[in-house]
Amino acid sequence: MGRVEAPTLGQVQASVADGLERVSRAMWRMVVADTSLAGQVSGHLMGMKGKMFRPTLVLLASALEGASEEERAATAGGVVELIHVATLVHDDAVDHSVLRRGMPTINALFSHQISVIMGDFLYSRALTELVSLNDLDMMRVLTRASTEMTLGELRQLSMLDVLSSSEQDYEVLIKAKTASLVSAACEIGTLCGAPVHRHALASYGEALGMVFQIVDDLIDYTEAQETTGKPTGLDLREHKMTLPLIAALRKMSPAERGCVETLFAEESPTDQKIAQVVGIVSERGGLEYARRRGEAFASQALDSLSGVPESAARAGLMDAVSYVLERHS
Amino acid sequence: MGRVEAPTLGQVQASVADGLERVSRAMWRMVVADTSLAGQVSGHLMGMKGKMFRPTLVLLASALEGASEEERAATAGGVVELIHVATLVHDDAVDHSVLRRGMPTINALFSHQISVIMGDFLYSRALTELVSLNDLDMMRVLTRASTEMTLGELRQLSMLDVLSSSEQDYEVLIKAKTASLVSAACEIGTLCGAPVHRHALASYGEALGMVFQIVDDLIDYTEAQETTGKPTGLDLREHKMTLPLIAALRKMSPAERGCVETLFAEESPTDQKIAQVVGIVSERGGLEYARRRGEAFASQALDSLSGVPESAARAGLMDAVSYVLERHS
Repeated sequence: MGRVEAPTLGQVQASVADGLERVSRAMWRMVVADTSLAGQVSGHLMGMKGKMFRPTLVLLASALEGASEEERAATAGGVVELIHVATLVHDDAVDHSVLRRGMPTINALFSHQISVIMGDFLYSRALTELVSLNDLDMMRVLTRASTEMTLGELRQLSMLDVLSSSEQDYEVLIKAKTASLVSAACEIGTLCGAPVHRHALASYGEALGMVFQIVDDLIDYTEAQETTGKPTGLDLREHKMTLPLIAALRKMSPAERGCVETLFAEESPTDQKIAQVVGIVSERGGLEYARRRGEAFASQALDSLSGVPESAARAGLMDAVSYVLERHS
Repeated sequence: MGRVEAPTLGQVQASVADGLERVSRAMWRMVVADTSLAGQVSGHLMGMKGKMFRPTLVLLASALEGASEEERAATAGGVVELIHVATLVHDDAVDHSVLRRGMPTINALFSHQISVIMGDFLYSRALTELVSLNDLDMMRVLTRASTEMTLGELRQLSMLDVLSSSEQDYEVLIKAKTASLVSAACEIGTLCGAPVHRHALASYGEALGMVFQIVDDLIDYTEAQETTGKPTGLDLREHKMTLPLIAALRKMSPAERGCVETLFAEESPTDQKIAQVVGIVSERGGLEYARRRGEAFASQALDSLSGVPESAARAGLMDAVSYVLERHS
């Protein structure tokens, strides 16, 4: 990544801004329902709409050979985003989370019951729209990605000895939970105008998804350190083993390892304890190691684009890699 | 229904016994997973497998023109049953139920979290298998039915004044929650060998699904009365308005209506109170009315078969109507 400054999300999305508007309209159309409750819940979800990162990838991938099938790509983008939102709603239901992106969750605002059923509603609606595109390949790609995501979640819920998980366990997990849908987004994008790049984009998306999650997990260790000076360390608080800790554990002294074990044995570890472990992870090279793995997957993602001809869409996908790698929140 | 004795489920299933074996094998194949947790949970679910009522309908419908496409019908039957099981798992998650068909739920045996994700896993797997059948019509039918089921559930969760719901509200609800999937089962059955009967069977299934749910709701009022002499009245206990109560309310005196209102205002009504309301519902003709509505839908179901040629499969579908109407549990 030879750049001094990483591209912003706005730059990544510049060439598909109109398309993203179409995706938003498609999503509204999909979640309209005859029950006022479903309407209210949908309205809340649409209001807290995120960065539309996955639809952006669908649109960029669809435009790699010039003429994107715009309406199909917009529907496909909306379907992927709805599946993503359905997954978040169920994740929050499983974790009984009350906040997501600083906004109250469906759980908190409505009820736990409603979040279970609303996730099902969004997923069923997304698939109904997907079927309307009459493309079995797209369905195959997305139903497989959904299965992979649920298996990843089940695998995580069934981990008994979290602290013994290896780097390979971690990679298998984030591939299932994150990279599978990012890869699916890129792959079905090509099916709306650039099918010749299907396999290249599936590989690109998988590598990009790995970068995305590794950086997410890094931010959990670094973000607050840069601003308030105190790490939030949410993953540590929730006893999640991510790459920085896995890498650092290999280099820790028995005393340091004991410190980590204590934290994982405590129901509610103190801020001080978390800060201490964040310090150890940093000193033992965990952040640096994770950063290097993120860079390696970023290179893989860029390499996957080597056979794709120059275009604004391709430039957008290259920028997306730097954006994901360099983002701080 | 001129018969003295209603057919047993065994009689309904006689002509498709081999097919049901194939459905079971297909289901096992579908739920195999590489995580031991998913395997354990699937094993439990397969162990508590129900009557395979929906796959029976798929198989009978597929054989209406003689040559059923046996392997496709078995897969389609397995897909429908898995979607049904996924719905039950999420219903139990929503209700925090601990027992289902006398067996512990996934909720109780594993955890609430696992039941949310396991429902998602089963549904995604079912759809992945469905896609492998390469039939867009089947996908359209099943994704629509799934959406309808979730909308029905959302509608029920959002009812504010349960006691004011009308017979029409009730019919809309059970059509969405029950009849939609029974209809879909019959319709996709025809797509495995007898497509000419597609619309007839969709109507048949919808009417049969209505009978199924009305009888289920009747049993809740009558079952225990016949055995222990005391009604369980689970629906009343859970403040669910079903047809017997809706019909009886129209004929009640103000005092009787007051009695019902008191019950619905109590968090945990006593057995005595429930027995009293069951008595009122019976005296005011609620059971009789629901029974007549069940019979009317049963006639509709039979009428839908009028254009279908005589065969063992058609006889099975006719028997299924009597079986559903006359069953007591």
